[in-house]
Amino acid sequence: MDKIYCDNQSNTKLDERVFEAMKPFFLDYYGNPQSIYSLGAVSKDAIENARAQTASLINANAAEIIFTSCGSESNNLAIKGLAWRLKEKGRRIIISAIEHFSISNSCKALAKDGFEICIVGVDKNGYVDKQKLKELLNADTILVSVQLANPEIGVIQDIKEIAAMVKQNSSALFHTDAVAACGFIDVDVKDLGVDALTFSASVMYGPKGAAALFLKKGVGIVPLINGGVQENSKRAGTENVPAIVGFGTACEIAKLETAQNSKKIVVLRDYLIKEMSEKIEYIYLNGPRQNRLPQNVNFSIEFIEGEALFLMLDAKGILAASGSACASKNLKMSPVLEALGVEAAVAQGSAILTLSKFNTLLQMEKVVEIFPQVVNTLRAMSPLYSYFQKTGARKEAGPGTDFDHHDHEEINED
Amino acid sequence: MDKIYCDNQSNTKLDERVFEAMKPFFLDYYGNPQSIYSLGAVSKDAIENARAQTASLINANAAEIIFTSCGSESNNLAIKGLAWRLKEKGRRIIISAIEHFSISNSCKALAKDGFEICIVGVDKNGYVDKQKLKELLNADTILVSVQLANPEIGVIQDIKEIAAMVKQNSSALFHTDAVAACGFIDVDVKDLGVDALTFSASVMYGPKGAAALFLKKGVGIVPLINGGVQENSKRAGTENVPAIVGFGTACEIAKLETAQNSKKIVVLRDYLIKEMSEKIEYIYLNGPRQNRLPQNVNFSIEFIEGEALFLMLDAKGILAASGSACASKNLKMSPVLEALGVEAAVAQGSAILTLSKFNTLLQMEKVVEIFPQVVNTLRAMSPLYSYFQKTGARKEAGPGTDFDHHDHEEINED
Repeated sequence: MDKIYCDNQSNTKLDERVFEAMKPFFLDYYGNPQSIYSLGAVSKDAIENARAQTASLINANAAEIIFTSCGSESNNLAIKGLAWRLKEKGRRIIISAIEHFSISNSCKALAKDGFEICIVGVDKNGYVDKQKLKELLNADTILVSVQLANPEIGVIQDIKEIAAMVKQNSSALFHTDAVAACGFIDVDVKDLGVDALTFSASVMYGPKGAAALFLKKGVGIVPLINGGVQENSKRAGTENVPAIVGFGTACEIAKLETAQNSKKIVVLRDYLIKEMSEKIEYIYLNGPRQNRLPQNVNFSIEFIEGEALFLMLDAKGILAASGSACASKNLKMSPVLEALGVEAAVAQGSAILTLSKFNTLLQMEKVVEIFPQVVNTLRAMSPLYSYFQKTGARKEAGPGTDFDHHDHEEINED
Repeated sequence: MDKIYCDNQSNTKLDERVFEAMKPFFLDYYGNPQSIYSLGAVSKDAIENARAQTASLINANAAEIIFTSCGSESNNLAIKGLAWRLKEKGRRIIISAIEHFSISNSCKALAKDGFEICIVGVDKNGYVDKQKLKELLNADTILVSVQLANPEIGVIQDIKEIAAMVKQNSSALFHTDAVAACGFIDVDVKDLGVDALTFSASVMYGPKGAAALFLKKGVGIVPLINGGVQENSKRAGTENVPAIVGFGTACEIAKLETAQNSKKIVVLRDYLIKEMSEKIEYIYLNGPRQNRLPQNVNFSIEFIEGEALFLMLDAKGILAASGSACASKNLKMSPVLEALGVEAAVAQGSAILTLSKFNTLLQMEKVVEIFPQVVNTLRAMSPLYSYFQKTGARKEAGPGTDFDHHDHEEINED
């Protein structure tokens, strides 16, 4: 039985056209791009072509693209590189409560170095509290980073408005993590008005090993990786030519095909949300209904233990996720769901299904058939569920917790 | 005409067996290694297998390997990560004068942060001044980094002796950059007695995009890239699975075949050195005759302008280098040759030919035929050479410069 891959926030399957573009750079064009002979020039030209392709996807200039090895590196470069650069100007950095670990943990590292990290909360749907953000802006604020779209709960922030507000009320630079957005929704750095933006190949049908930081012309940065003159001395190290070529090709394909693909993916997403909510009781959608990534479905399902759910889904051929890919080895609650105010007991039974252009309606029909069966099987084994059925009460729910006045949208009641 | 690739210090050609091992991880096994379902487990297992293979090559334990994206990243992680970790203990870091830019420029970055960087000179053959190093060790010294072998001039340091001396006379940690060594000579971290060691796939017939830092069990480090739990929280970011698999395979092949390959490569190297010295006048070998990397040939050739030499060699099908790959875009003199005491005018006409297992004696015969012709052609156009021929004196040589008492080994006089 073919697996149904629904974990595209972790990693998308590589587009075969991308792999074809990469192939010659493994065995044939292996020259180091920094070498001045012909074989080096082939690599160099390929990188500059990829730079133009990646820049074009986000409406940037090629010279504003710094290639890195992954989205986490780009985020680290943005947060630490800009903070280090601006440390004489101020010490305050503001981020949202639902940033990727590579943002939040970079900030934790900077906090040890004397930077002041402020975290802005989000509402129950994941929207950043703009009023609070505005209040936090002061003369000491050097950098604000708010995710364009969250890979876990799919919420798309109004970055254009947020960046403009930050610019109006401070001299801070504005960075956005667009890893989950690029390749699924339109991203235009000029329209957004951001100074820096992270995007990555491996979640937009490109290869692992290549990502980029867009850095607006004129914005200075301290490199994370010092060494040679690669990437205009902003990121040293031998360029991963095949991966960069693949990234460029993935961006070119994305520019041409994203609108059409996303239209199709939205249909699959909405089918999943509708069917799952109808077929499963006590299921809640995390993240908003509007302004939601085309590929994202995130449910919390009561009386279910997350890990068991995944293993059983996997056994039935459905590959999903329980949280951020980087957190899956942690058994801790997802910080994103925590920020939304989801109760721990409910968050425990969360399922993230992230789709791609490779998914089909037939696959989704299969998911909608299998998923509720798995939930039923697990609930049949659950003492908590059996207690709930007998008494109508939720055992082990803490004092004051009232699931009937649950803070979330209970989607099967809509 | 087939090109004769002699720039293996910049980048080796990928071994086809390595590419075969990587291939399934592009289109088939694309799961994120951090995901708990089956497709993720395939990637995870592949990474752990590669970790065992890379560890085995250098006689380390698998848990002592941190995968990174390139040698420069590994060197940055070693230098900055250990310095940040030990900053309360001391502030002095000692490196040699012929380290790679990723070491020396990491140190420059740390110097801005209050660390004290001491640079130990080398003798005319590139050997580190051990007495001077010993004198520099003090209670404030937290880290010493000396290259195992220099990619430019081929000198192999006696790291075992140097590391032991450092350990005897201080509590500093010892790191060595073994990028140029691994895959060409035996490297054994236990025998060397080092705490940290850098090696990289792309110069040992593996792919671009994967390298490692060996970090001895029990040695703490501050991550360069914060984020998820990958690499035991020492290097965040989605793992570049195909590249890591390729690196592992390259290490396994290296373990089996390096001794035999290097025996063959040494023959080619020595043939080149002998023939070139006989056929070309006023040519000097940079780096030692003994303790020299099997793959390295580095000549300074008088009355020659480096860039013209490369372009003309390239046109004739010979791909060589003028300095460190990371420096080739710089028109500045190689800092390595400067550290050896080579005069600027002589260093200008330097040629580095670095060989690999893919080179053949037939190719070397071709090099030995073409290279002297190119030198003759260039000299025929050189006003400096014509002046020298007429007068026997070197024009533009600075006061006190006496080429007859040249500090180097003039190999055609041996």
